[in-house]
Amino acid sequence: PDMQQSRDTRNIAIDKVGVKDIGYPIVVMDKYREKQHTVARINMFVDLPEHFKGTHMSRFIEVLNQHHAGISVENMETILTEMKSRLGSGRAHLELDFPYFIEKRAPISGARSLMEYQCRMIGTQAETYDFILEASIPVTSLCPCSKEISERGAHNQRSIVTVQIRYSEHIWLEDLIEWVEDCASCPVYALLKREDEKAVTEQAYDNPMFVEDMVRAVTQKLRSIPQISWFKIQCENFESIHNHSAYAMVEGGNN
Amino acid sequence: PDMQQSRDTRNIAIDKVGVKDIGYPIVVMDKYREKQHTVARINMFVDLPEHFKGTHMSRFIEVLNQHHAGISVENMETILTEMKSRLGSGRAHLELDFPYFIEKRAPISGARSLMEYQCRMIGTQAETYDFILEASIPVTSLCPCSKEISERGAHNQRSIVTVQIRYSEHIWLEDLIEWVEDCASCPVYALLKREDEKAVTEQAYDNPMFVEDMVRAVTQKLRSIPQISWFKIQCENFESIHNHSAYAMVEGGNN
Amino acid sequence: PDMQQSRDTRNIAIDKVGVKDIGYPIVVMDKYREKQHTVARINMFVDLPEHFKGTHMSRFIEVLNQHHAGISVENMETILTEMKSRLGSGRAHLELDFPYFIEKRAPISGARSLMEYQCRMIGTQAETYDFILEASIPVTSLCPCSKEISERGAHNQRSIVTVQIRYSEHIWLEDLIEWVEDCASCPVYALLKREDEKAVTEQAYDNPMFVEDMVRAVTQKLRSIPQISWFKIQCENFESIHNHSAYAMVEGGNN
Amino acid sequence: PDMQQSRDTRNIAIDKVGVKDIGYPIVVMDKYREKQHTVARINMFVDLPEHFKGTHMSRFIEVLNQHHAGISVENMETILTEMKSRLGSGRAHLELDFPYFIEKRAPISGARSLMEYQCRMIGTQAETYDFILEASIPVTSLCPCSKEISERGAHNQRSIVTVQIRYSEHIWLEDLIEWVEDCASCPVYALLKREDEKAVTEQAYDNPMFVEDMVRAVTQKLRSIPQISWFKIQCENFESIHNHSAYAMVEGGNN
Repeated sequence: PDMQQSRDTRNIAIDKVGVKDIGYPIVVMDKYREKQHTVARINMFVDLPEHFKGTHMSRFIEVLNQHHAGISVENMETILTEMKSRLGSGRAHLELDFPYFIEKRAPISGARSLMEYQCRMIGTQAETYDFILEASIPVTSLCPCSKEISERGAHNQRSIVTVQIRYSEHIWLEDLIEWVEDCASCPVYALLKREDEKAVTEQAYDNPMFVEDMVRAVTQKLRSIPQISWFKIQCENFESIHNHSAYAMVEGGNN
Repeated sequence: PDMQQSRDTRNIAIDKVGVKDIGYPIVVMDKYREKQHTVARINMFVDLPEHFKGTHMSRFIEVLNQHHAGISVENMETILTEMKSRLGSGRAHLELDFPYFIEKRAPISGARSLMEYQCRMIGTQAETYDFILEASIPVTSLCPCSKEISERGAHNQRSIVTVQIRYSEHIWLEDLIEWVEDCASCPVYALLKREDEKAVTEQAYDNPMFVEDMVRAVTQKLRSIPQISWFKIQCENFESIHNHSAYAMVEGGNN
Repeated sequence: PDMQQSRDTRNIAIDKVGVKDIGYPIVVMDKYREKQHTVARINMFVDLPEHFKGTHMSRFIEVLNQHHAGISVENMETILTEMKSRLGSGRAHLELDFPYFIEKRAPISGARSLMEYQCRMIGTQAETYDFILEASIPVTSLCPCSKEISERGAHNQRSIVTVQIRYSEHIWLEDLIEWVEDCASCPVYALLKREDEKAVTEQAYDNPMFVEDMVRAVTQKLRSIPQISWFKIQCENFESIHNHSAYAMVEGGNN
Repeated sequence: PDMQQSRDTRNIAIDKVGVKDIGYPIVVMDKYREKQHTVARINMFVDLPEHFKGTHMSRFIEVLNQHHAGISVENMETILTEMKSRLGSGRAHLELDFPYFIEKRAPISGARSLMEYQCRMIGTQAETYDFILEASIPVTSLCPCSKEISERGAHNQRSIVTVQIRYSEHIWLEDLIEWVEDCASCPVYALLKREDEKAVTEQAYDNPMFVEDMVRAVTQKLRSIPQISWFKIQCENFESIHNHSAYAMVEGGNN
């Protein structure tokens, strides 16, 4: 007897049902190196009409198995369509959370190293297809007030800028990340030689920014990219003088 | 010079700005014991009009200091009003995340013990006041399919049901939590004697529920409470036969 | 039939068995305010001789219930003795992990606020009693190299110094925390007014310290306290110019 | 001026100093598929003699960059030797924490899916070389007491068995993991069809195990493998009838 297929009479449709927090190796398209191997945490949901008792959880994993050799922005829609058809549902939802690595060169020495960015792809397929690209970008922020009022030095700290975008034309993670890094007091790097450390210290000191300035600068940048239709920008400063964070958020769009 | 008050010309209003992830001891109203001491993680945000460069972060902490002896559903609105006036903003937002303890009696022996529930209060004050109460309630779920097809036993596991509600009249955390526990295959307890363990094992076996059944049962219950105007119900089963979770969500309202 | 009491013939004694990750409200002794309410994560273990099949998990919770109104450095040994007697074991182990709050005054304005410190008590009772007190103390660190080589500014960040000590005579958390804060480039505060921000910025700039300097300074301090018999000092700098941490550790003792 | 090389007069040697929590893509040797791409969190430490002021943090990253194309049990010692020579230290320490994936077949249908195991390699090079291999293996545990006293059903849950070993001859992660899974009430799987769900439910019911039984069964198994010289076995049951865990640990060795 297929219990999941049996009739439910409570008259309650379920908005999302599925599998959550699956660890899975994936291959993501890379702007410069073609492909990148990484590991994702994955959530897969569909809606469930009111008259069905349950969904078939094992089918989510089967869909995943077919596609793990290459999950990408490109085939997100295909996977969602397959989820809808395998699960017999009207709406499918897929979230991939993964670390993404980009080779960066130190500003003076040019020393190469890999920077890690936590990224996310969120796709929903109903009547229409909706896709959100997210990246969390660590940067340096230096406090303008502290610089202004102090005779020497200025407090600074690591910040995380989390950007979500919807777009009308493909945007690479590499580009999105670079746009954000250009807005900070200074980017951060995995590897800095002595001459680089001098350069980033001075660059941050010369570009003081409140958490408000950071989200405004990123807002200005994203507004200038016409293919971005919607964005949400959050910045969290892990304050070096407090044990809590400063935070700012702007949500907006272009049209 | 008050840098924060200086003029910003980029024409970008900020939706939320403030302090995040502050640890703070608070006192919450308790249905049976009057007051309960606990520790919260706190976020406090306001909006920032486009012409101001920055907000005054220290004022958030000052508002918090005035109220920590008793933060409760009752004075949430007062705190938000004070945030608006101290920060000169049109909208204030306050989130409190805290463990809440309720004494529970084991089903047969009546042995008393404290159960911990992770709770949250989310208040927003703009033109109108909006308040969301949230509780995460651990319960036992037992799989109907596994019971049906197996000759003996049935897989079961800990689940977390997270309920958010808006209401027109005060609802106690104690009541909200009890409503949810009554919907599960079985509640969980901190202390169970031998006779209790027998009782909860059999109760769970006699009440098999899919993750879909759990959110539907809670939906039915919350629909029957007229003062609840909106709810969002999520259930996550930490499957004992998988290394991932099963998940379901229903969002709805009464009217 | 008491299955736990039945004979196990595999000839394998178990080093630790018990309950883990229990949330529980506790009351801790406070140097200045007598008592402090907080919430702990608790682990309770005993050893199990080779001939017993199992321990009685519910008895751990019963012991906890008797003492939660006041768990403190003072009665840790009593609780452990009770665990041994209730569980019939030769060794008992108790870990309490909890946030602890201390009122601090800003350096210039004197503005008061509460600082949160994650603390831990680890007690073991076998033939003898062993007790470890731990505190994690957030501070500011400012890089001496960055200051030296740069024409202006110096990178700085939040650091966490985690200190564990064994002592022959009672030491207050308040004192241990103050000793560590005095060793940093600058302490951190929950509330700083403008004049305080100037002071802490300049103090940090005037006291540059590598992560190595931090653990050495704390080592010197703890060596000067005769009642401390053993210590382990760890420092982690959440580097503002990198996306990883710098780390140092010294373990030592006084004799 | 090389500040790190300057003389420190406090006479305090540092046990460990270096970089912590670096995200990095690595390639690990796979028993069946030759190589496996994954992402590691990495810690790299050396000791620092008392007369040096600091270590050179950037050199750790340089060593890592040279080897990331293939970090494995095989070249762990090479990397450590290089760390010692590049940093001029007497002791080097390297920790790699990474998810590892193994294809598993469902017990009846044979359906293939990938299971994720959190693994760790810990290497230390001083006068001698020390290496610890760790794997965390999710399994099902079913309570013997609950089965015995109940008329129907038995509570069961997901457990994590964490095993650390030292060995005299190479042991594959694949083998270590299989040994542990064979000791549980039942293994867990990413994908189970209906007939598999019946099989695992009944297998768990037929093999009830206390948390004590789990660590004892694994102890027996590891004692029977002559090339294992030392082991530490921990099991944590995320109890389906409580909101806390049951825990047991055995540490031992062969000789």
